[in-house]
Amino acid sequence: MKIGVITSGGDAPGMNAAIRAIVRYAIPKGLRVVGIERGYSGLLEGQIVPLDLRSVGRIINLGGTVLKTSRCPEFKTPEGVQKGGEILKSNDIDGLIVIGGEGSFKGAVELNRVSGVPVVGVPATIDNDVAETDETIGFDTAVNTAVSAIDRIRDTALSYERVFVVEVMGRDRGFLALEVGLTAGAGVILVPEIEFDLDGVCERLMTYHERGKATSIIVAAEGIGDTSAVVRCIEEKTSFEVRFTKLGYIQRGGSPTARSRRLASVFGVHAVELLLSGAGRSMVGIQGTTIVHRDLEEVTKKRKTLDEKLYELAMELAM
Amino acid sequence: MKIGVITSGGDAPGMNAAIRAIVRYAIPKGLRVVGIERGYSGLLEGQIVPLDLRSVGRIINLGGTVLKTSRCPEFKTPEGVQKGGEILKSNDIDGLIVIGGEGSFKGAVELNRVSGVPVVGVPATIDNDVAETDETIGFDTAVNTAVSAIDRIRDTALSYERVFVVEVMGRDRGFLALEVGLTAGAGVILVPEIEFDLDGVCERLMTYHERGKATSIIVAAEGIGDTSAVVRCIEEKTSFEVRFTKLGYIQRGGSPTARSRRLASVFGVHAVELLLSGAGRSMVGIQGTTIVHRDLEEVTKKRKTLDEKLYELAMELAM
Amino acid sequence: MKIGVITSGGDAPGMNAAIRAIVRYAIPKGLRVVGIERGYSGLLEGQIVPLDLRSVGRIINLGGTVLKTSRCPEFKTPEGVQKGGEILKSNDIDGLIVIGGEGSFKGAVELNRVSGVPVVGVPATIDNDVAETDETIGFDTAVNTAVSAIDRIRDTALSYERVFVVEVMGRDRGFLALEVGLTAGAGVILVPEIEFDLDGVCERLMTYHERGKATSIIVAAEGIGDTSAVVRCIEEKTSFEVRFTKLGYIQRGGSPTARSRRLASVFGVHAVELLLSGAGRSMVGIQGTTIVHRDLEEVTKKRKTLDEKLYELAMELAM
Amino acid sequence: MKIGVITSGGDAPGMNAAIRAIVRYAIPKGLRVVGIERGYSGLLEGQIVPLDLRSVGRIINLGGTVLKTSRCPEFKTPEGVQKGGEILKSNDIDGLIVIGGEGSFKGAVELNRVSGVPVVGVPATIDNDVAETDETIGFDTAVNTAVSAIDRIRDTALSYERVFVVEVMGRDRGFLALEVGLTAGAGVILVPEIEFDLDGVCERLMTYHERGKATSIIVAAEGIGDTSAVVRCIEEKTSFEVRFTKLGYIQRGGSPTARSRRLASVFGVHAVELLLSGAGRSMVGIQGTTIVHRDLEEVTKKRKTLDEKLYELAMELAM
Repeated sequence: MKIGVITSGGDAPGMNAAIRAIVRYAIPKGLRVVGIERGYSGLLEGQIVPLDLRSVGRIINLGGTVLKTSRCPEFKTPEGVQKGGEILKSNDIDGLIVIGGEGSFKGAVELNRVSGVPVVGVPATIDNDVAETDETIGFDTAVNTAVSAIDRIRDTALSYERVFVVEVMGRDRGFLALEVGLTAGAGVILVPEIEFDLDGVCERLMTYHERGKATSIIVAAEGIGDTSAVVRCIEEKTSFEVRFTKLGYIQRGGSPTARSRRLASVFGVHAVELLLSGAGRSMVGIQGTTIVHRDLEEVTKKRKTLDEKLYELAMELAM
Repeated sequence: MKIGVITSGGDAPGMNAAIRAIVRYAIPKGLRVVGIERGYSGLLEGQIVPLDLRSVGRIINLGGTVLKTSRCPEFKTPEGVQKGGEILKSNDIDGLIVIGGEGSFKGAVELNRVSGVPVVGVPATIDNDVAETDETIGFDTAVNTAVSAIDRIRDTALSYERVFVVEVMGRDRGFLALEVGLTAGAGVILVPEIEFDLDGVCERLMTYHERGKATSIIVAAEGIGDTSAVVRCIEEKTSFEVRFTKLGYIQRGGSPTARSRRLASVFGVHAVELLLSGAGRSMVGIQGTTIVHRDLEEVTKKRKTLDEKLYELAMELAM
Repeated sequence: MKIGVITSGGDAPGMNAAIRAIVRYAIPKGLRVVGIERGYSGLLEGQIVPLDLRSVGRIINLGGTVLKTSRCPEFKTPEGVQKGGEILKSNDIDGLIVIGGEGSFKGAVELNRVSGVPVVGVPATIDNDVAETDETIGFDTAVNTAVSAIDRIRDTALSYERVFVVEVMGRDRGFLALEVGLTAGAGVILVPEIEFDLDGVCERLMTYHERGKATSIIVAAEGIGDTSAVVRCIEEKTSFEVRFTKLGYIQRGGSPTARSRRLASVFGVHAVELLLSGAGRSMVGIQGTTIVHRDLEEVTKKRKTLDEKLYELAMELAM
Repeated sequence: MKIGVITSGGDAPGMNAAIRAIVRYAIPKGLRVVGIERGYSGLLEGQIVPLDLRSVGRIINLGGTVLKTSRCPEFKTPEGVQKGGEILKSNDIDGLIVIGGEGSFKGAVELNRVSGVPVVGVPATIDNDVAETDETIGFDTAVNTAVSAIDRIRDTALSYERVFVVEVMGRDRGFLALEVGLTAGAGVILVPEIEFDLDGVCERLMTYHERGKATSIIVAAEGIGDTSAVVRCIEEKTSFEVRFTKLGYIQRGGSPTARSRRLASVFGVHAVELLLSGAGRSMVGIQGTTIVHRDLEEVTKKRKTLDEKLYELAMELAM
């Protein structure tokens, strides 16, 4: 049996640990493993390389993905998917493990439909916006990177007695912003899932100020839209000077945290197990401490819910 | 209602985040909160200070504990416990939250027995050796600190082609070593719960070497006993130069990771809830993603089991 | 003799180490030390607090400034300076140490002119744009923070095969960008002091690409003006996808590096020495490994030159 | 002209940045560059690989050395050196750049003597114990690593109110300990160059304690000998609990700081320049901000002096 591994979409810290786990678990079981480089683009160009035990040495601690990744418009067409399926078959690939997020999984579902090649999704994205799994590979790392950055910004905030607005990633969802806001001790957290009015935000900041809090940090998800409008609005409605920082691409990189590495290792092993057990189209996920298997197509159709109670708790602890 | 907060035993990153959560959650509910300084020693000396919303500002990201901690032999005597109970009562403390590990919880159980004052345990120790909870406050931080340290040591290991033995904390248990070994990509993990023979370890190292792996890192729990004997033994049985590093107290400190801060925040809130709901003697824990409450005395009598499957998985991925 | 310490302008990591050194060196010599809070704003409001040996304990490793800082428009008027001088005198301050950058030094020169109170400048700014000193407090920390951030971004750059443009601080100067670009291994460095044409930049990127370099990182000083125009221009002139990140306020904060702490300690001690020796208006600086004293007014009139040879060297090593 | 590059002795962060600078500077000037792997051991075994512009891509931020290193007893014999010289010649190597410390330079001097092949030393060691240069590659990184580790240990020290003794590397010299002690804010610094009596140390600790300082950190150089005897002695002479941590190999690794990368880049370029200019046997160094060239044999015979004034200053600022 020969399995292919591909990383697709935005890179996430821990992807390499997943590749390592897949290779190290599969080979001693008699499987051959190939890596498909540069995501679906590389698949369409037949960029396929063999992977052995040593080729995944020393990568568990590296950010990014050694297989590289890309976005591939061609793969969104029926012809692209058809071609992808043919290349899988002509390379005798009996099963494909796709490490990526929802968009990558949609492509994998199509690939399975046209080619019949079994596909297993391994959820990896810093946005944590994949349904049916509590956590995705890379999320814990991105949260810690953002929190460390905010710890730095707080030094200046405390020295200057100003309000800082920090925009974090997360695409159209607020998972990253909520977790970062809670653990960085943000005074206000703005996420797309929960409505807010800027008058209320300003009142909150002024209440904090009256209680003796000289500076506040607002964590905003990029998904709320125009964050700089929020900045201007707060400046107009209050007497506070407001500074704005968009954390940007530093959130994507860096050596994965222990937790991202662990999740990647466990997911990788289970993905191989799933292919060995004859699964046709599934995703590995974690719920609590239990590893679960879900139909990959179902996953792409579901919307993950944000934990609103956790949001309330974060706001109760803020001041 | 007036509640006391105490940190006891070894310090763990995230203790401050727990103190913050307790204070910030309790005060708006009308409770008064006092901090008992320097663990049970401070209790016996009546070192009790009021805590308000602002006094826990800017501490969420600090390692250690602002309430300080200690070990207190006197508190292990019936007279000490008796005195502690009297001081709680004379200070009108209606409930006590003890942030610490198993040893601290034993003291809390006794304190509750003699005084009748309700006690709630919040598990916080880098060793993760508290039963009935998957994780303790500080564990995730210590794992990441150790993994980062090993990532550094690997630079030298790879440059020198040597075997490195790294001893991590964990008291008499292997939770920290297992998690660190798995996520640092250690070639061998030695924990007190799982028997090993050094001949087997040496064979494993030689197999790795034959496969082209020039260096190996062995992660050993302090609980296995004399680690430097292991070092000497490997040097004798193989031709490899072996270097030994004991990570020591760096594992205890540092700014808590997001996960340690989150666990601390959630535990802190639930501990207050438990006191409000009239619980007499319980511990807050987490199982999967569910917060659980357990009888505090039961907890101190149970032995937590190490996940042997995870150990096997770590060894399968090593080479 | 009673001396005042003030931090003014943008905060810089290491300011606290300088405050600590001043207090710890001055007090055993029989001097009294007071801290003026919130920069010149706090001076005008008489926010003056005594400092003793213990009050500067545990701050050597903290970013920002425990004395806080501000910008103060009022202090730019003759009336403001006059008032400041009177407050110094009414508080019996016999000498003032100003920790800050060029703007803060201009204020100090005026203050000295109207009041006659001796002033000593201690150069502290992440921008390193103060004449007559090779280095300012905070510069080394900011360089390392930016380099670490770029190391993270490189993970994504390598995974995606794209061009990344990273904007760093530095006000209207390129000191920070040059040092960061050199040590982060940037493919192109853009600084205001050295003219560049975007055609040349694009050619360079294409040459790199032909040599097999899949990704490039461009480090741009904020002082070059509209960086996002550079991004758009490169996208139009080449086939490369370009991503833009502005590092922002994370560069200001964080625990100071050893070098920033050392410079701060040495500068602090020499500033006290200068006041003791009766200097009227001077700045402490470092040239090579020699501590120098310069007339503070002269310093504010000189423009520091960028090391163009170092720039050329950085470009020679890039590819 | 064909030049060889070798890294020898203990690895130091920044060695890779030096290799990169040498290759990137030499090749466009028409030189060929080969890397000799595994130090002098690899030289004797003829492990020589060509290096090109791309082979040094993405290594500027890596700790350790991609050329690997070793200690080589055979090379300390006349026969070994003879053989090394012959291998250089049979490989048409016209000049050799040796990146390492004093021991490696002694070997290089011998190699030059027997073979006539020009050799240039590039000082790289975390110990900073090379004469005629203010700083060696890797020193700044090791200092910062140790200081960060101590910042972590301080969390526990402050929580527990204990004395911590931290042993740092430095072989038989105190350069690392002095710099670390100064910038970590240690209460006491013990180095082999400056005599100390333990009674005085204990008195100092007690004075600190009387002033209200609850915890002290002692930084000790490994060169002082039996540090654990110091620990026991302090415990006996004072009432303080003392904890001991030996930082160990974490000090050797890690991504180089900006300063280590810069020094490596500048040294690498000048080493190539020296070979091009026909130098026979020299070392590149830095004094202040000036790059200097010194006779390599002279360097190995000189003993670098410790800055005792800096030591006194560190002690004056401690309390």
